Amino acid sequence: MKLTQTLHTLEVKTTGKGFFEINRPLNQWLAEIGATDGLLTLFIKHTSASLIVQENADPTVEQDLMDVLDRLAPQRPDYRHSSEGPDDMPSHIKSMLTQSHLAIPVNDGRLALGTWQGVFVLEHRAQPHSRKVALHYLGNTGP
Amino acid sequence: MKLTQTLHTLEVKTTGKGFFEINRPLNQWLAEIGATDGLLTLFIKHTSASLIVQENADPTVEQDLMDVLDRLAPQRPDYRHSSEGPDDMPSHIKSMLTQSHLAIPVNDGRLALGTWQGVFVLEHRAQPHSRKVALHYLGNTGP
Amino acid sequence: MKLTQTLHTLEVKTTGKGFFEINRPLNQWLAEIGATDGLLTLFIKHTSASLIVQENADPTVEQDLMDVLDRLAPQRPDYRHSSEGPDDMPSHIKSMLTQSHLAIPVNDGRLALGTWQGVFVLEHRAQPHSRKVALHYLGNTGP
Repeated sequence: MKLTQTLHTLEVKTTGKGFFEINRPLNQWLAEIGATDGLLTLFIKHTSASLIVQENADPTVEQDLMDVLDRLAPQRPDYRHSSEGPDDMPSHIKSMLTQSHLAIPVNDGRLALGTWQGVFVLEHRAQPHSRKVALHYLGNTGP
Repeated sequence: MKLTQTLHTLEVKTTGKGFFEINRPLNQWLAEIGATDGLLTLFIKHTSASLIVQENADPTVEQDLMDVLDRLAPQRPDYRHSSEGPDDMPSHIKSMLTQSHLAIPVNDGRLALGTWQGVFVLEHRAQPHSRKVALHYLGNTGP
Repeated sequence: MKLTQTLHTLEVKTTGKGFFEINRPLNQWLAEIGATDGLLTLFIKHTSASLIVQENADPTVEQDLMDVLDRLAPQRPDYRHSSEGPDDMPSHIKSMLTQSHLAIPVNDGRLALGTWQGVFVLEHRAQPHSRKVALHYLGNTGP
């Protein structure tokens, strides 16, 4: 079967700091383009938000993870880069410690995730943002 | 030459917390499918184990890295998510701070790693587990 | 259009610990091979240097990020692995907490980055090094 690629940009509206699961819009896009088996690569076009694969069964996991990120990247008065607000430099740090891109196999037209895995946009800024996630599908496509 | 893709799931048995090198089974699979030049993508279907590329020459490197992960994600009594045991939430944190996927170029049918680089499954749970690593090879294949 | 892949190794000279932006040589290579739309994957063949996508508008961001990495991975007298110098084990830790590979969409022959995103080699060792970054382009190519 002939391999093809499809590129797209997904817009994700966040409501401020937190985890925003995108399994559904990703699977929807894979269905739209007729993806069958292949690989989906995601790349977030921002450095104060990031991508992560984590458990999506129990929301307290996300809260505990956010606490850890807050401890590792607290708001501090002594960052050199402070012109964009007290939550900006912590956001870059959290982005550094998580992922700016992900790659996930696609099977039978859907993300081949483990049972409790969710794909999330991690918003690190306090305010709502519209985040651009570039998608690249490589693989087979059906009729 | 015509590009092809091959998908597979590698099962990795861990014996509890630690580094489990998978260079050998990865190269073995690449040989089986006749891979020559391309790209291998790995994705772990779990959020309490992860993937990492690290030095494989001196095992004390792995012990020091594990100490760091234990310091960054200690067992604490105050995690909200505690129903799956005291080592579960630390495992999710360690997974967040390392990788859920990797991509490694393939050259002449083998992983194009640096001299002392190993590819590891990082088991974060205390108990042994069987971990599923989804593989996607894209590239040329030989006769 | 027919998908093709191209592999290459980029040599990046570092002058010691710091961020070294590689947007320019990456875009130059993409132009040389006639890349149009596709995906660029980078893999660093070292475990004491790493890759990162971060803000490239304000250099103080990089300094603050480096401070964080130094706090998370200080030079300590009690690492087991110490034979390669006091900055070696901290380098492996920093490498673990950042990325050994990246994947970035390519659009119209250029990296499809956000407005202020830079792709950097993160040198963690104190001394200058020559770092090998393996590149894999997959996608369409022009005339």
